[in-house]
Amino acid sequence: MDQVIGIGLAGFGTVGAGVYRHLLSNAEVLSRRAGVAMEVRKVAVKDTAKRRDPAPGPGLITGDWKDLLDDPRVSIVVELMGGIDEPMALVAGALERRKPVVTGNKALLAERGEEIFQLAARTGTPVYYEAAVAGGIPIIKAVKEAFVANRFVSIHGILNGTSNYILTRMGSAGLDYPEALQEARDLGYAEADPTLDVSGWDAAHKAIILASLAYGFWVPPGRVLVRGIDAITAGDVRFADELGYRIKLLATIKAAEDLRIEVRVCPTLVPKSHVLASVSGVYNAVAVRGDIVGETLFYGRGAGQDPTSSSVLADLVEAAQALGRPPASVGFTGHELYGDCLPQEDAVSKFYLRLHVEDKPGVLARIAGILGDAGIGILSVIQPPHEESAGPVPLILMIHDARTGAMEAAARAIAGLESVKAEPALLHVEDFR
Amino acid sequence: MDQVIGIGLAGFGTVGAGVYRHLLSNAEVLSRRAGVAMEVRKVAVKDTAKRRDPAPGPGLITGDWKDLLDDPRVSIVVELMGGIDEPMALVAGALERRKPVVTGNKALLAERGEEIFQLAARTGTPVYYEAAVAGGIPIIKAVKEAFVANRFVSIHGILNGTSNYILTRMGSAGLDYPEALQEARDLGYAEADPTLDVSGWDAAHKAIILASLAYGFWVPPGRVLVRGIDAITAGDVRFADELGYRIKLLATIKAAEDLRIEVRVCPTLVPKSHVLASVSGVYNAVAVRGDIVGETLFYGRGAGQDPTSSSVLADLVEAAQALGRPPASVGFTGHELYGDCLPQEDAVSKFYLRLHVEDKPGVLARIAGILGDAGIGILSVIQPPHEESAGPVPLILMIHDARTGAMEAAARAIAGLESVKAEPALLHVEDFR
Repeated sequence: MDQVIGIGLAGFGTVGAGVYRHLLSNAEVLSRRAGVAMEVRKVAVKDTAKRRDPAPGPGLITGDWKDLLDDPRVSIVVELMGGIDEPMALVAGALERRKPVVTGNKALLAERGEEIFQLAARTGTPVYYEAAVAGGIPIIKAVKEAFVANRFVSIHGILNGTSNYILTRMGSAGLDYPEALQEARDLGYAEADPTLDVSGWDAAHKAIILASLAYGFWVPPGRVLVRGIDAITAGDVRFADELGYRIKLLATIKAAEDLRIEVRVCPTLVPKSHVLASVSGVYNAVAVRGDIVGETLFYGRGAGQDPTSSSVLADLVEAAQALGRPPASVGFTGHELYGDCLPQEDAVSKFYLRLHVEDKPGVLARIAGILGDAGIGILSVIQPPHEESAGPVPLILMIHDARTGAMEAAARAIAGLESVKAEPALLHVEDFR
Repeated sequence: MDQVIGIGLAGFGTVGAGVYRHLLSNAEVLSRRAGVAMEVRKVAVKDTAKRRDPAPGPGLITGDWKDLLDDPRVSIVVELMGGIDEPMALVAGALERRKPVVTGNKALLAERGEEIFQLAARTGTPVYYEAAVAGGIPIIKAVKEAFVANRFVSIHGILNGTSNYILTRMGSAGLDYPEALQEARDLGYAEADPTLDVSGWDAAHKAIILASLAYGFWVPPGRVLVRGIDAITAGDVRFADELGYRIKLLATIKAAEDLRIEVRVCPTLVPKSHVLASVSGVYNAVAVRGDIVGETLFYGRGAGQDPTSSSVLADLVEAAQALGRPPASVGFTGHELYGDCLPQEDAVSKFYLRLHVEDKPGVLARIAGILGDAGIGILSVIQPPHEESAGPVPLILMIHDARTGAMEAAARAIAGLESVKAEPALLHVEDFR
């Protein structure tokens, strides 16, 4: 511990403030364990006049992130700004100057990861991003280091706490989606504009990072199937429960044939017997299956000031320890053993199809006919109990393994039947084979 | 990938053979991801004549582990021999020669860890030991690196697959201990002499390593409370179930007052609502609570050729990448923020006390009197349903937080009552506060 390492912090929101606070509060344990002492020497924020708690020391605050780049007392740049264009310029500027970067910006990596790691490789300067995926859970370290000898069979993750909270409450309290969303807002688990969370895109950014790391090429966001949770009804949650499943916003990443991979993030029926079905509230979890290690699972808090700070601080220690020596890895290595995504229409899955139909003879026969003509097998049909009425009634079909493209076409054809009254809901069913 | 790193393998049992096999089978993914190529250049075994599958290449086998030390083509020594004295001599010899060591030997580290890491620090040569704790689960990396910024509140682990299989089957199939043990033997989950597993000592070795790493000093094995599962009856498993618990062989590691820690490994009642209660069969799991990261959990296969090989290979990659540069860490850093174990008699816990008593008035009053005199509170008393008979009947008491010393003395006094007929069973109850 000869030397104090200077940190430049870009962004002082929830996570930035947490990093600053814990760097002070746990300085002793950090420096004794890691043999490095670290000090924040510049903090870049948008509004320099804003009062903050904790308040960065006098003279630390700047309104211009570019000030971090050329300050010789800043050796490591921590990017916690949010957004894409400015963070990209900051990260590129830091790497050009051979300053290692720690970031928690999942959108930045998902959109511009390829470019960032080309630059990291060219300048021999590492980028650390444990905080970008699943908050305090060290899943990047697990996939990158602990399972380095494994070919990945599959990775399944619950990667968005807000969505998981909403779906959990729809199940445990029978709430409808708008009620559960409002509750999440009231508790501070959902932002005023929850679009990024409930649309599936926050989880998709994390899934893209995990898939890219596991399979050694940057997965284009356009090749990922992303569906949100806003169309899920309290009825779907209840019907799934009766069938032995819970609905989760699940990231599914799998090795497919011909060195291709499948990546999707969508509301998915998970068997209650699988441990991921028990991950409730704002918690995250990732199940990784490797060809050598077998089945593993990692669980913890996936967001929030403290868990995310814990990951940023771990990355900072690693960055500080590696300063001034050629890094073993810049944080991502393309390995060309896989190279493409399976087209979504070719991905094979079980499905849950929920319809609202007229309660009269012959309806099921017509639906079964459409599926049969498409070569799609039905596993089971349930007609949940309903009140006697002239209105449409729910009808649930569990569908055998089918090509997604064929299944979607069949669902559209079924939706066009006169006796089918509302838009069908088509959800993936994951059985973790 | 300019250079091939030479490996010396000491021990070619289950794990050694797995490392050899997967180093060949996954050579491409390993070398592309890690940028290092590795080759086994010597294999030390006891019986050089034995036929092996996979069979190490010609000329690799030696009957003397000392041959690994002075062979200049061996850069990293992998110790998978078992035992303590010979492995200790091998590890010391390798470190003296500045050859990094990868080991899966939990007994060696638990007994001689302090000495090994003093030597590692003196020679600046790292020792890697992910495979020593919880097989394929990267818990050493998590505690050492991912949570480096945290003060550890507690670590709870199910660390022995054999015991967990036996307890799981006692619960799911109502087997008695001897039947469940025989089943585990028949399936290859228990060895001919299962003492190390069922006595709690295998788990205790792992707990000692985790506790030492988390709290920065080598925990003396004599300061750990270790109890086996062989006195647990099918009745205890059933009574615990009725009370809302499962019995697990649980390692409990906690920060206590005055910079002291508690470490124990014993059959423990775990609330069914806690995720550790759901860890069944030969799986392992570790729940880590840090002051910043909060509650986390790691789950996977804790033993066996493949999962353990996965961890050895990850350590090998790290060792190979770090060759020839001063290591950031030699694998263990004492930090002097904690320094002692709480005496076991001072540890406070809830308890389960199972008695067999004469079924007549006044018995409970005398038992309650002894507990009351000792200042020990009773949470609940249950008398499980039993056949009408003149013989003794089970009586279960759930005990409020009590000092272990006081509780054990009270249990002895109760055992001395004339109406108490069999040896009482006293088990810890963990509520994860």
